[in-house]
Amino acid sequence: MKHTSTARAQSAAIPVAVSVRHVHPSQQTLDVLFGPGHALQVKKALLQPGQFAAVETVSLVGPRGRLDGVRLLGPPRAVDQVELSRSDEIALGIDAPLRVSGDLAATPGIELEGPAGRVRLAAGVVTPVRHIHMSPADAQRLGVEDRQRVSVAVDSLGRDLVFQDVVVRVSPDFRLELHLDTDEGNAAGVGPGTTARLLPEG
Amino acid sequence: MKHTSTARAQSAAIPVAVSVRHVHPSQQTLDVLFGPGHALQVKKALLQPGQFAAVETVSLVGPRGRLDGVRLLGPPRAVDQVELSRSDEIALGIDAPLRVSGDLAATPGIELEGPAGRVRLAAGVVTPVRHIHMSPADAQRLGVEDRQRVSVAVDSLGRDLVFQDVVVRVSPDFRLELHLDTDEGNAAGVGPGTTARLLPEG
Repeated sequence: MKHTSTARAQSAAIPVAVSVRHVHPSQQTLDVLFGPGHALQVKKALLQPGQFAAVETVSLVGPRGRLDGVRLLGPPRAVDQVELSRSDEIALGIDAPLRVSGDLAATPGIELEGPAGRVRLAAGVVTPVRHIHMSPADAQRLGVEDRQRVSVAVDSLGRDLVFQDVVVRVSPDFRLELHLDTDEGNAAGVGPGTTARLLPEG
Repeated sequence: MKHTSTARAQSAAIPVAVSVRHVHPSQQTLDVLFGPGHALQVKKALLQPGQFAAVETVSLVGPRGRLDGVRLLGPPRAVDQVELSRSDEIALGIDAPLRVSGDLAATPGIELEGPAGRVRLAAGVVTPVRHIHMSPADAQRLGVEDRQRVSVAVDSLGRDLVFQDVVVRVSPDFRLELHLDTDEGNAAGVGPGTTARLLPEG
């Protein structure tokens, strides 16, 4: 069968990143958790330009349990955001809605514990919606638009699956990468080097 | 069988059960954890005939962490089997292979802690392969066979997905039910009353 260029593009490998639970802290929160004016130290640059995993970690304290060693991501944001898997939420005893990054209205809060203090967030906890970061050029090549919901296949050793309800996020600042949470990554058997394929619609 | 009736049958709703981490203990293990001759108490009958969730729970102790309140399932089996999600395994610090129930060769062990004692299992920890229990009549109606790998769609609120690599398990003792682990259930947004659909091959 002859493939159109669109079909070829759609079968291109999309790198997969599994996001373990993490916090995007505000500077105000860092001041309380680590001391006034604390600057996050870079542990590892992430694929998305300018973003990094920090050396620093915090504890999350929920009504049912606590999770220690939760990674902070930088640079600091204007508003605190905590991203958890449903497994994490069950361990902590909280129930956070599925949201795209930054959409924090009517989300639950949680307590953060750092070496210098504690912060009780009033809101900001979300279950991240699975999404694909991409540049405008990627979007054009793949034939998709910002905010479109697409289907993506992950072929792994024994846990193949197709994720529907994957949100496309387009920005000149983004590099092509599928972001899953740990539940999703585990359900698909994602390991080092696993890639995904955008599926044609219908 | 006519093609149209097959298509209808395959779109029939399959009940979904999310299996939280649990242990199928042997009587020998129960004797150590709860005292000689201990009989499991029934908390709740499961859909699969004769199977039940017990009142009793144990703790699992791994190299990295512990999980308390882990449910025992009865009746006791000849060989201990511990079923975990990958999220559980990461919390405990162990790495268990994907297996169908009862296939325990070359699986890791773990320590179980009960009110009367501790047992160090040499093997028996698995990540359960997602599977559908069904009767021979269900299998005939759905056009599938024991051990066949099939694809199943789960439509939920915002986390639709298609599980491939779902193993069919046929027995006169089984009732129709898709079994997922908690990672898989969470990735699909499974809630009370969620059902699944068998997809046609190809």
